[in-house]
Amino acid sequence: MIIVPSEKDGAQIHSITVNTTVFNQEEVECVDELWEEYLAQGPEISGYYFLVEKEDDRVLGYACYGPRALTDRTYDLYWIAVDPSARRGGVGRGLLAASEEAVRKLGGRLLVLETSGLPSYGQTHKFYLATGYTLEATLKDFYRDGDDLVIFTKHL
Amino acid sequence: MIIVPSEKDGAQIHSITVNTTVFNQEEVECVDELWEEYLAQGPEISGYYFLVEKEDDRVLGYACYGPRALTDRTYDLYWIAVDPSARRGGVGRGLLAASEEAVRKLGGRLLVLETSGLPSYGQTHKFYLATGYTLEATLKDFYRDGDDLVIFTKHL
Repeated sequence: MIIVPSEKDGAQIHSITVNTTVFNQEEVECVDELWEEYLAQGPEISGYYFLVEKEDDRVLGYACYGPRALTDRTYDLYWIAVDPSARRGGVGRGLLAASEEAVRKLGGRLLVLETSGLPSYGQTHKFYLATGYTLEATLKDFYRDGDDLVIFTKHL
Repeated sequence: MIIVPSEKDGAQIHSITVNTTVFNQEEVECVDELWEEYLAQGPEISGYYFLVEKEDDRVLGYACYGPRALTDRTYDLYWIAVDPSARRGGVGRGLLAASEEAVRKLGGRLLVLETSGLPSYGQTHKFYLATGYTLEATLKDFYRDGDDLVIFTKHL
């Protein structure tokens, strides 16, 4: 079941971010910070919205999105992550669809996904292309030398 | 003379942002917010560095830049603006060169400029291309329908 998470889901969200193994320490801390702001201020003020897929008390995956400043109804999907033990069950696809629906309800017009061009993100790229996203831009060496920024977009 | 600004330069920085006429109300407020954070926390904590070109007590233009989160030494040039009455005197070019030099001194590797694709930014695009930037990506309708995001980069 995909729901809006509450404070008690925070520890599992953190664990999933660590367990995916694609995120480095700074990225893990970034997710933690967005989660703290979400808890402290709520989504409207913080600009960070979270959704989780839960099976009983277990969090299988989460998504985080929010409006991009200075744009007219453009939203970023900041993070989407699924616990490695829950892969291949459609959790990521469900979270992505639920995030799109939620952004549509907020009035969103365009959804932007920024991701790494590293080979370890190859499955992620295929996933976005398979779910209707367009690979619209690449910024060479953006994250670090040899690690490009790859931007996917979808008009909602 | 290009210097690091102090609190008393804030009013003129605000006026220049308004006077350029290319920035909308939300963008003017965004510059004001970055300036407030810069004053309150300093550049290292806030992540916003400012430079101004001054002639006696008059601010002719300013630049604002800072590190991009989650990257290895990639910096954003957030804003660069010159008072309309001081145009064509090389103020913008001087501020851009001084910003690049300052970012180099901070260890910066890559400088990223995000700007609008609207015709009113045509001169800005020419200016960046003439100063060694590469137009590396365009995100269609990013700011709003008909208003693309255009990204320039320069390896430092």
